[in-house]
Order: sequence, then structure tokens, then C-alpha cells
Amino acid sequence: MKQHSLRLTVVTHGPGFTDLTAKIRRFVADAKIGTGLLTVFVPHTSASLLIQENADPDVLRDLKDAYAKLAPHGTQYRHSTEGPDDMPAHIRSALSQTSIGIPVSDGAPALGVWQAIYLFEHRDAGHTRDVLLHLIGD
Amino acid sequence: MKQHSLRLTVVTHGPGFTDLTAKIRRFVADAKIGTGLLTVFVPHTSASLLIQENADPDVLRDLKDAYAKLAPHGTQYRHSTEGPDDMPAHIRSALSQTSIGIPVSDGAPALGVWQAIYLFEHRDAGHTRDVLLHLIGD
Amino acid sequence: MKQHSLRLTVVTHGPGFTDLTAKIRRFVADAKIGTGLLTVFVPHTSASLLIQENADPDVLRDLKDAYAKLAPHGTQYRHSTEGPDDMPAHIRSALSQTSIGIPVSDGAPALGVWQAIYLFEHRDAGHTRDVLLHLIGD
Repeated sequence: MKQHSLRLTVVTHGPGFTDLTAKIRRFVADAKIGTGLLTVFVPHTSASLLIQENADPDVLRDLKDAYAKLAPHGTQYRHSTEGPDDMPAHIRSALSQTSIGIPVSDGAPALGVWQAIYLFEHRDAGHTRDVLLHLIGD
Repeated sequence: MKQHSLRLTVVTHGPGFTDLTAKIRRFVADAKIGTGLLTVFVPHTSASLLIQENADPDVLRDLKDAYAKLAPHGTQYRHSTEGPDDMPAHIRSALSQTSIGIPVSDGAPALGVWQAIYLFEHRDAGHTRDVLLHLIGD
Repeated sequence: MKQHSLRLTVVTHGPGFTDLTAKIRRFVADAKIGTGLLTVFVPHTSASLLIQENADPDVLRDLKDAYAKLAPHGTQYRHSTEGPDDMPAHIRSALSQTSIGIPVSDGAPALGVWQAIYLFEHRDAGHTRDVLLHLIGD
């Protein structure tokens, strides 16, 4: 049984999705692990992860709108010193994922054919984000 | 340290919950692993997972209604080519789980006494869904 | 490759957050595992987990309010025998996490500098809650 770890750096450009799937597939392939468990983890509280459809970009636009409605900008928040977009960003992170575990088989993450792994940026400004990958298996 | 994997096939009948707990318990028991980590993963983007109460079926009906309110059908979505239920299904999936990790002890998933593991179908029509199980431990 | 497990007991005092980070860090340090995967799991359906900001307590107050708006108390629920706060508690649990996986490196969970791991109590009354920790690595 072996382990591999990698820290990805991802530059975002305001609210929306960055597809991490190709980089994550390469990490798993390079690790030469046939069967195992991959963990994707975001060490931030205003950006998060989602596995969602990789085909129609309108799905991502609609998802962004849906999260904007569920956790809108506004004056209802106590926490506002970091800007009006910061508290909604925390809530949108809480309503998505900080960590996702994905089985690995045949040397690749066992994603469905329509699935991609996205970093979901919630702040209005672009940020440089870390994404941690961990793989255990043999 | 050993690993076991299994692909379950689950036939759903429109929006709602299918209890996977018995099948998952049997997978863990058959693997003869006393202590470890179980991962349940759904390779779909319009069906998802939830661990929720196993006692009163009204909890599941209320949960279904709550998700229907949080991500309603409607004309507000760009992505509509797959039907009016498809984009709400993606949002409801995003607001629940694609992957759940559960510690295993004494040869069984360490679920609470009131917990069951459900597949949560979000499309109006029934579907045949895959659920991937991965177990590592000894 | 080794495994360690621990059951934490956490006393809550109504809706809100209990910071588990120090106890979880101590568990990982005591296990003498340098690299691995930590899983935090809640065996309850009306309390859950969130990784969120550790700096400004107003973030936690705003998060609590946001979840109260997303899943409000009210008369719309079928499931009401356990009190008017029970069904909202199930929905708020579903909208947060029952399980979180965190990579371990250099003998510590690889949390971001602003991240804490919280137990999120959703019932009006205080409860004694279990939190399960599992660690695999070497």
C-alpha cells in the first residue's frame, strides 16, 4: 500500500468554476496506483469543490446563479469587514464541498462519464487557491 | 491492509430515496475487514447521496419537499434541453453529497442507530443508477 | 500502514458551532502518523460538520442565521412529533456535512490557516453528541 500527495495551485477569476479533472487524472496516473482512494481537499473557506456535469457550460452558469440566490449579497450579515461578497462566499462554501473522496480503479478516478471535478470560487475577485490531492492504494 | 470494491446497480422510480444500508452492510461484512474506511460514491450529477433518519418515512418526504423548494422547477434556467427537471436535479445534487466516507469498526460501518445511507434520485423519471463502494482496512 | 480510531463526546448547548480542531489535532499527533487520511464522521442526523473560518465569530453567527433561513421552523412539515425544531435540524444536516476527509501531512491535518472543524448542532436543546475519528497512514 502506497500514498502520494500533491498541492495544486489554481488561479481563479471571480465567481465560477475551474475544471481540475485533467490535472487530477494526471496525478493519479503518475502515481501508478491501480486501486485506491483519492481525496481532493480545499484549504479555504470561501472557495469549495463540486463534482458536476462536464458537458453543457450552461449547467455551470445556472449553478452559479442558484448559489447566488441561496446565499445572496446584502446587508443582512454581521461579518462585512472583508467586503460584501465575503460572507455569501462562506455560506456558498458551506453549501458545497470542502472535501471529496473518489474511488480509484484501473489507475483512474472512477468518475462517471458526465462528471468533472471543479474548484468553485465564491469571491468577487480572482484568487490563487490551493487544492490538496491525497491518494492511498496499491 | 486490504481493499475491496463493488459497483451496485440501483433502479429508481422518480424523485426520492432508496435505502442502500443493507447492501452496504453486506459488502462490508463479506470483505472481512474489521477496521477501515468505507467510501460510497455516485458517478452521476442528477442523483446523489444522503445519510439521514431511518425511522419515520415522513422525514424523507419532508426532505424531498425541502430540496424541491431550494431548487424549484421553473423557467429561470438556461440549461433546459434535457427537460425542466434536469437543472433542478443538478442543483439538488450539489446541495447534497456525491461521496460519503464512513469509518468501519467491528466489521461494520460505524453508522448511528438512526442513520441510513440513501441514494437520492432527483430526476422525474426512474433511472438505473450506479453506486460505487470502496473499502480499505484490515 | 497503520490505523487509529477515536470516539469524541461533545456536549452542545443548542444551535451553533463547537470547535473540534484542537482535539482532532491532538488525536492525529498522538497517532504518530506523518502522512495519511483523516476522516471525521458524525453518527447523528440532526447535527453535522462544517469546516469554516476560525477568525471572526460573526461568520459563525451569520452561518447559523443562513441555515435558519434555508430550513426554517414552521408548520409545513409532516414530521413534527419530536418538536418543531427536529425537521429543520434534519434539513440543515443534509445541507452541511456528515463526513469530512482531510489529508494529513507532517503529522497534522492539512487545514488552511483560516480553517477550523466544527460540530454544527441543529436542535434547540443541548445534546451529547458523538464524533468519530479515523486515521489511516504511515
